[in-house]
Amino acid sequence: MNLYEKTIHKNSIYNGAIIDLEVHDVVLPDGQTSKRELVYHNGAVAVCAITPNNEVILVKQFRKPAEKVMLEIPAGKLELNEIREEAAKRELEEETGYIAENLELITEMYGSPGFSNEKISIYLAKDLKKGEMNLDDDEFIELEFYHLKDINKLLQSQELEDAKTIIALQHLLLNYNHYN
Amino acid sequence: MNLYEKTIHKNSIYNGAIIDLEVHDVVLPDGQTSKRELVYHNGAVAVCAITPNNEVILVKQFRKPAEKVMLEIPAGKLELNEIREEAAKRELEEETGYIAENLELITEMYGSPGFSNEKISIYLAKDLKKGEMNLDDDEFIELEFYHLKDINKLLQSQELEDAKTIIALQHLLLNYNHYN
Repeated sequence: MNLYEKTIHKNSIYNGAIIDLEVHDVVLPDGQTSKRELVYHNGAVAVCAITPNNEVILVKQFRKPAEKVMLEIPAGKLELNEIREEAAKRELEEETGYIAENLELITEMYGSPGFSNEKISIYLAKDLKKGEMNLDDDEFIELEFYHLKDINKLLQSQELEDAKTIIALQHLLLNYNHYN
Repeated sequence: MNLYEKTIHKNSIYNGAIIDLEVHDVVLPDGQTSKRELVYHNGAVAVCAITPNNEVILVKQFRKPAEKVMLEIPAGKLELNEIREEAAKRELEEETGYIAENLELITEMYGSPGFSNEKISIYLAKDLKKGEMNLDDDEFIELEFYHLKDINKLLQSQELEDAKTIIALQHLLLNYNHYN
């Protein structure tokens, strides 16, 4: 079966700083039409960074949509035309003050594929050097450091609720299991 | 530091079938104000279901936001006032024709915590029985079955791009590693 849905009409609802909203009329595989509500986002990057002390750097920040403080790996939006790996290095240094010279791609993921095209590239960073923190004006965060041997316990605690962070830490457990 | 951001004004932009969009003026921890673009969603459930043949059931469907067919564990939106575990059983049977009497919660996750409150509860289902498929009118999917011994290869292939699916399959590898 050809699962493709062709857009036959676009209605632009909102153009914002972070997201745009459109409603499309689409033709379904059986020829009927339906509506799709679509949130467009420029994409984001995230970094699972391991310090020379074998600690993972996590960021605590208030997330307005869920109205709670969440614990996440450092991450941020792509700037216009920015290369993903460069964005990842920039966000890591801005949020944590650490510089990563080499990044390894863990995976790319869509967090909400049903309504949003936001794609997050998740990187692993080792061999960190000291750089300079530089937060955005509207960014307020606290850093936490978790030793690799405590990652399994952190995952089991259900304290983590952010998809990219769960993926990155499960990846560490699967690939660096001498720390378990 | 108190990271909380208090909303001082809400602007409702859109009320849709799946999502609502609001823009809030918030007070930041330093007393300055900023805007937050917020996509509200009723929440969703997903099920990593293992057949009596030790196969994981995956669903191929076209995702309009990314304009591509994606491979995902069965999932769906909560209906109004629906209990999450009941929704998970309903979605599993509707999409795959399998009934799960007992579900085990793997984790709950926010896929896009920066702009959306969509929370997905991911369940593990074993001891499946045959029921009846019953797709929504605008739902077109194909089922694929992957044996547990092939899950590691599937994860490594980078073919999976859906966060909930990556989390569920990593969880299987971490907890059922006699299949690796």
